[in-house]
Amino acid sequence: MEIQIFTVGGTIDKIYFDAKSEFKIGEPQIGELLQEANVNFSWRLDSLLRKDSLEMTDTDRELIHQRVAECELDHVLITHGTDTMVDTARCLMDIPGKVVVLTGSMQPARLRVSDAIFNIGFAIATLQARPPGVYVAMNGTAFDPLHVHKNWDQQRFEE
Amino acid sequence: MEIQIFTVGGTIDKIYFDAKSEFKIGEPQIGELLQEANVNFSWRLDSLLRKDSLEMTDTDRELIHQRVAECELDHVLITHGTDTMVDTARCLMDIPGKVVVLTGSMQPARLRVSDAIFNIGFAIATLQARPPGVYVAMNGTAFDPLHVHKNWDQQRFEE
Amino acid sequence: MEIQIFTVGGTIDKIYFDAKSEFKIGEPQIGELLQEANVNFSWRLDSLLRKDSLEMTDTDRELIHQRVAECELDHVLITHGTDTMVDTARCLMDIPGKVVVLTGSMQPARLRVSDAIFNIGFAIATLQARPPGVYVAMNGTAFDPLHVHKNWDQQRFEE
Amino acid sequence: MEIQIFTVGGTIDKIYFDAKSEFKIGEPQIGELLQEANVNFSWRLDSLLRKDSLEMTDTDRELIHQRVAECELDHVLITHGTDTMVDTARCLMDIPGKVVVLTGSMQPARLRVSDAIFNIGFAIATLQARPPGVYVAMNGTAFDPLHVHKNWDQQRFEE
Repeated sequence: MEIQIFTVGGTIDKIYFDAKSEFKIGEPQIGELLQEANVNFSWRLDSLLRKDSLEMTDTDRELIHQRVAECELDHVLITHGTDTMVDTARCLMDIPGKVVVLTGSMQPARLRVSDAIFNIGFAIATLQARPPGVYVAMNGTAFDPLHVHKNWDQQRFEE
Repeated sequence: MEIQIFTVGGTIDKIYFDAKSEFKIGEPQIGELLQEANVNFSWRLDSLLRKDSLEMTDTDRELIHQRVAECELDHVLITHGTDTMVDTARCLMDIPGKVVVLTGSMQPARLRVSDAIFNIGFAIATLQARPPGVYVAMNGTAFDPLHVHKNWDQQRFEE
Repeated sequence: MEIQIFTVGGTIDKIYFDAKSEFKIGEPQIGELLQEANVNFSWRLDSLLRKDSLEMTDTDRELIHQRVAECELDHVLITHGTDTMVDTARCLMDIPGKVVVLTGSMQPARLRVSDAIFNIGFAIATLQARPPGVYVAMNGTAFDPLHVHKNWDQQRFEE
Repeated sequence: MEIQIFTVGGTIDKIYFDAKSEFKIGEPQIGELLQEANVNFSWRLDSLLRKDSLEMTDTDRELIHQRVAECELDHVLITHGTDTMVDTARCLMDIPGKVVVLTGSMQPARLRVSDAIFNIGFAIATLQARPPGVYVAMNGTAFDPLHVHKNWDQQRFEE
């Protein structure tokens, strides 16, 4: 099985720029994480956007939809900001015949303690084992996009 | 879904004891890792053994078999040393009606760079999404125990 | 020797707040770092401010000056943002009879790779070994506040 | 100031070899740590030995003594195993005109939590600020080799 990975930004890819004293979205982290995990499947990586998901527009979502629909591979992983991950997931539900998994993290992957690596591992297995459809893979659960929301107080996704 | 976790030792749980200048198997790491990932499913954790898997005996495997077979939950995760993980997996294949996933790591979870967290995330999703059976979840793949071996030179599992 | 530590904020103490999708200054990190290093000297810790150093005012510097001057201990460590660390250092040069060392970091202490821990170790030894005066301890050098500046392009301090 | 670094092994350089299920001494870690800290002094690095310090012989110590005595630089840092660090330090006390600092760590530098980076930072500043002599830089203190021992129960150095 070969996997297509699209990255569009979000907390998972944030790094700290001292020059501006702020965290900004940097290079996609997932490639390095997959190498550290020494995975034995093939994957392609395309960075589509580098945005906080609160800043994503309808045009951005159309781009993501187009790239997923046109993708020649049947297994697509998207790393995405958490704030509007569910919105993007719902937009992709009309694409037939593909397993599409969205994941991200509450804490940047570069931190000593982060949920990013766990979430990537979880998302990859979800992609391999679930039937065609769209899944939000967060907090150790593969959610149906129609029945999930981000609980801001608890800082996690739930039904 | 509630998950039963059994830990039996292996590299994943190794910590460094300065007093003896060596790495030994310490407390199970998986509980702390699941808390860092802020998962929203329930789990029970029992530490059955603390062994390098090369030192595991038939008696040890009988114990693991008994505990898995008697477990009232249908989803069982076992963290295990990599050297004989496949042997233990094969021993458990006669247990009906349960999803059993074995995982571990090539590098201790306490290292700055380790495959442990990715593997735990991958194993949890495999447990949730796969039909009843026994799986070896390593290197981003859910292997059939009858068709997998550890490649010592490449330091990874393959068919 | 007992050491007085004052924290006033800066990158070293930044943690990621997912709720606001930004890095903000959190609890002082130095206490936890000293415990991890298992140091065998005594220290007191007071958090005076939690500011990006670009936002520090003359009133803030007067507060720091007052607290250092009134401190009953002769060895004072200040963790501080890097942008105006030199300015604060110069303000403290009229305080007699004390060794005062300012340090901080270019990358938050919570990152997997950060200069924070090295800088703290370096600053502590500078505090113990140097004669009374004020020092900027950054990038492996104990600088005279009158002959140091932050090189923004190179992201490090130099004469 | 230019610094000569000699590495002779010890816990600080231990990495985990899955092939042998044990921790062994690997490449010197200090070079990578100094690069992460982005230090602005010059240094030379020579790896003399790769030994657990309990295995060091009189011949090994003669080699270290010879290399330090012949070194053209006046500031010498040695990373060393903790068990016999004090013995080696005492052997070097007859070398005139140089500042010699020995350091190491109780936990390998590759661990997520380790005293290694703090100790390196502390040792570098000790090297720069102290008068000629030999120092054991551990646990946030620059010890006189004649008045220090490793407390095994507390896992730290003390007078």
